[in-house]
Amino acid sequence: MRRGPLLSIAARRPVCSPAVHPLAFVGGTGSQGLGLALRFAAAGVPVMIGSRAAERAAAAAETIRAAVPGAVVRGYENAEAVARSERLFLTLPFAGLGRFLAEAREALAGKLVIDVIVPLVVRNGFFALTPVEGAASAGELIQQTIPAARVVSGFKNHSAEKLRDLAAPLEGDVLLCGDDDAARAEVATLVGLLPGLRAVDAGGIANARYLEAITALLLNLNRRHKARATIAILGLPEP
Amino acid sequence: MRRGPLLSIAARRPVCSPAVHPLAFVGGTGSQGLGLALRFAAAGVPVMIGSRAAERAAAAAETIRAAVPGAVVRGYENAEAVARSERLFLTLPFAGLGRFLAEAREALAGKLVIDVIVPLVVRNGFFALTPVEGAASAGELIQQTIPAARVVSGFKNHSAEKLRDLAAPLEGDVLLCGDDDAARAEVATLVGLLPGLRAVDAGGIANARYLEAITALLLNLNRRHKARATIAILGLPEP
Repeated sequence: MRRGPLLSIAARRPVCSPAVHPLAFVGGTGSQGLGLALRFAAAGVPVMIGSRAAERAAAAAETIRAAVPGAVVRGYENAEAVARSERLFLTLPFAGLGRFLAEAREALAGKLVIDVIVPLVVRNGFFALTPVEGAASAGELIQQTIPAARVVSGFKNHSAEKLRDLAAPLEGDVLLCGDDDAARAEVATLVGLLPGLRAVDAGGIANARYLEAITALLLNLNRRHKARATIAILGLPEP
Repeated sequence: MRRGPLLSIAARRPVCSPAVHPLAFVGGTGSQGLGLALRFAAAGVPVMIGSRAAERAAAAAETIRAAVPGAVVRGYENAEAVARSERLFLTLPFAGLGRFLAEAREALAGKLVIDVIVPLVVRNGFFALTPVEGAASAGELIQQTIPAARVVSGFKNHSAEKLRDLAAPLEGDVLLCGDDDAARAEVATLVGLLPGLRAVDAGGIANARYLEAITALLLNLNRRHKARATIAILGLPEP
């Protein structure tokens, strides 16, 4: 029902709409960031890859260009990617989040910050959430640390491995939470650019703790069932 | 795909299989317990309602008989319901769990204990998990407190209101976790008796914390969307 057509690999022509201004992926050389950037590039959205090292960002951009002929993609150091975009995905590891926020605090003010981070540890094969100091989730930490940013947590429940596998159609729901209604709506528009996915409005940023819990559960399910699982919410009224 | 036929309201003839020995619902006069008992009664399974007060248990049993003509259902004080059944659902409020476990500790040894409890609080309209003393979830607390019980956490993500509405077909996945593989398989067989539901093996009891987190999320979604939502896991291999 909610599955769109199969993903076409070649980039679509960028549409002239506010939805397709460049998207930056801070820490976008990691698996989750690169996977999301690939999907958005394939949907015709210009993307920027941010990395601590400019040459790694450039290499990731080249990877995307090779996978998605015609993609509009550039690589930058993280700070420059932040400066050049009004809409950023934070896709760096949780371990690097505190330092990044301290450095990027002023540059992120007023921007749409899409938080994809999950604070995870693996112990004896069990994926567990690790406590976030001063907040109940990574999403809440980001919003508390940078009150002037428009933070939306989302895309936490889709497998990086599957995102990177452009031949695999996406499915399921992208739960979005954040305290700024308009920001959630903007991210929902972005979700709509990716065939097969549905955006679900999950309300305020305090729900980020539950989105992160679902990630840990899915990773445990993936390990047990050798899967790349995701979730769907059943029983919501049609929009 | 995974939806079975609509639920028939009249009880089915009990099948002669180990799957249909009586099921007891401790605290079964509450909304979640009564809803589950109604659904199992409608599926032809004999049920016992347990309550702190025998007369309230009897009244709940009468409610089930009225809704499901032909249902095999009896009401008992909780302790007697525990004594009379090898398979129990714990459907009492989290606030009553500690006292119940202290009293029922020996009686529960060796039994299949299906934990449906979620430690929740509501603050300013936001459903939040409340910390469980000495454990990361209600399910883990029960297993730690009574190591000799065969604890399976499950049925945490289905709306009590919808369970009680027998005209509403059920849908979605029942995530089951517990440290005893055979116990999880037994509960999966029980799930299979309820049309429309699929059992998903979610591994060890430590995953109960995530099942409880999903409950809180679903309650927040229900409030926002005026829904009775549940979840499905997408991308698991067919069994």
